Amino acid sequence: MAKRVFNFGPGPAMIPTAVMERVRDEFLDYQGIGASVIEISHRSKDFETILNTCDQLFRELLNIPANYQILYVHGGAQMQFSAVPMNLMGLRPANKALYVDSGRFAKLAGEEAKRFGQVEVIASSAKTNYDHIPSITPAMVDPKASYLHITSNNTIFGTRWNTFPQTGDVPLVADSTSEILSRVIDVNKFGLIYAGTQKNLGPSGLAVVIARDDLLGHAPANCPNLLNYATYKKDHSLTNTPNTFAIYMIQLVLEWLKGQGGLAAMEKVNNQKAAMLYDLVDSSGGFFKPYAQKADRSTMNVCFNLPSEELLEEFLKGSKAHNLYALKGHRDLGGVRASIYNAMPLEGVKALADYMKEFQKKKG
Amino acid sequence: MAKRVFNFGPGPAMIPTAVMERVRDEFLDYQGIGASVIEISHRSKDFETILNTCDQLFRELLNIPANYQILYVHGGAQMQFSAVPMNLMGLRPANKALYVDSGRFAKLAGEEAKRFGQVEVIASSAKTNYDHIPSITPAMVDPKASYLHITSNNTIFGTRWNTFPQTGDVPLVADSTSEILSRVIDVNKFGLIYAGTQKNLGPSGLAVVIARDDLLGHAPANCPNLLNYATYKKDHSLTNTPNTFAIYMIQLVLEWLKGQGGLAAMEKVNNQKAAMLYDLVDSSGGFFKPYAQKADRSTMNVCFNLPSEELLEEFLKGSKAHNLYALKGHRDLGGVRASIYNAMPLEGVKALADYMKEFQKKKG
Repeated sequence: MAKRVFNFGPGPAMIPTAVMERVRDEFLDYQGIGASVIEISHRSKDFETILNTCDQLFRELLNIPANYQILYVHGGAQMQFSAVPMNLMGLRPANKALYVDSGRFAKLAGEEAKRFGQVEVIASSAKTNYDHIPSITPAMVDPKASYLHITSNNTIFGTRWNTFPQTGDVPLVADSTSEILSRVIDVNKFGLIYAGTQKNLGPSGLAVVIARDDLLGHAPANCPNLLNYATYKKDHSLTNTPNTFAIYMIQLVLEWLKGQGGLAAMEKVNNQKAAMLYDLVDSSGGFFKPYAQKADRSTMNVCFNLPSEELLEEFLKGSKAHNLYALKGHRDLGGVRASIYNAMPLEGVKALADYMKEFQKKKG
Repeated sequence: MAKRVFNFGPGPAMIPTAVMERVRDEFLDYQGIGASVIEISHRSKDFETILNTCDQLFRELLNIPANYQILYVHGGAQMQFSAVPMNLMGLRPANKALYVDSGRFAKLAGEEAKRFGQVEVIASSAKTNYDHIPSITPAMVDPKASYLHITSNNTIFGTRWNTFPQTGDVPLVADSTSEILSRVIDVNKFGLIYAGTQKNLGPSGLAVVIARDDLLGHAPANCPNLLNYATYKKDHSLTNTPNTFAIYMIQLVLEWLKGQGGLAAMEKVNNQKAAMLYDLVDSSGGFFKPYAQKADRSTMNVCFNLPSEELLEEFLKGSKAHNLYALKGHRDLGGVRASIYNAMPLEGVKALADYMKEFQKKKG
């Protein structure tokens, strides 16, 4: 059997081992055709079935209404930092979009949008280095805006929108890269949700976009054809060859997720996993220092620190001997970050918790 | 052992079985780290090594001069239909580009470029349904143009530029998706070469761009950050998470290619493979009808037809029993298309030739 560590990397991230084994086993010969899934035409029956299955599973798992499209768009979430304003800025004459600055990627998204129209940052938690989600009241949402953009989970700082803002008629757009499919949400509350695939969906190099029909078809003439959502809708994401390997793996990940009991069951386990770490941190008498404010804690990325740089270094070094991988925090924040996406099993979190307890006992 | 057919599909295409086996064998545990190559950070040492190795191998195999950059850009070749004009149209004040219409994708590239400036199609072989490469004389190349775009191999029609046009000071830009690394070329003759990865390089969802330094940095402010070549140069293609699986497989394919003796050796085998089919077609007394005019024949895509639709149907049906896969021509042309990229072994072409001879003997 292949050696497998508990991989707490923020993305590209751990994929369920059962899925990985399936991919390996059929890698040279997909379903008896004598060729790999990566060697067949994106217009073949076999690939069409994969794409349709992905659509069905997304609809089923996220309860996506019929008036929403599912698009598989080239590039990761950051390509969407451009595509969202290119496609949606023109929805209203003011050509203006609202952004909430809740972290590094939220900020980058707003900066990129300035190329394509007027951007107003209506709230920011930058002053306290993004340790919480800014509050948004309905009065802050200019009804003339084309959309309001949020980052529903902030990977680097471990914060999450636990309650989504009320935006009235202004479409709510969410970058859900680091939390898609981790909890039950009401898709109807969003105009558009997008996610890079390399955290909760599969390999990197693709974004999934879930968009309400009436938001499509508003891109200007100088929008590149392959960044125009209307193109993807018209061609069922097959205008040119998509990242077929990623789409194939998404199918397997979605099937795995369904087998786990779907989003409600996954949310329950995710809450359990996150609580195990946060409870330990909170009850450590200050040895482990949580980063995010309690109300806004993420269940996907748990960020904390140790009493000193030396202990942090020792903690990270020692983790490897416990089969725990990629726990180092992002360079913007330091400390420890445990990314515990859907694929991280409860036993992996338990192994981390055991190591944390042992470490505190020795060094605390 | 896994069943493997001879896969003549035009792309996503056959990958050398030795490469496929290597990917399979280390898929769950990359070099003993306990995680897959698709589960590790694009900023990890392991991935950095992969990216650097790709760069080195490209430089070595294609003899790429130091003043050229190698970029790994999101999306396939069709994303480059937008990126090329966005980045290069502004090179000269006329904001004008020249295109040669030598096939479906060549035409699409020119149409997409119109979003970003003035496009002049200086020659076309559309009238004879792209059975040849149009002739370009130096006088046809407007020196005020920012670049001249060609498609160096036309996948659908099986034609190839055997001699590249003289463009003087106007940068020559080539879409080499369906022939990159198949023959020795002089990179110095080009301003920029791009290729979608799914034919001669690896899996789909990425393009490799080889660009002369002085052509970078001319994109306008409204160019999406991830379509701006200068961004890729600055960040060594790691602005965001790239298609890491494709880049990893490209490394293995390039290593395989080097092991085959590099481009000169590969070109020799490719010529041999193509000649085997063209000679058979030419000497079939008209039973097999070649499509492309002799002087412009591709060594990558060999297109021919049979005396009737019934015989074509029978030929395609019977091919499967001979382990020959995906020989059906493109819907724009019909007939048979044998895509014989680098990964197709000589024995696969021999198997096809034997089947063709046997078929003609029975039905001719």
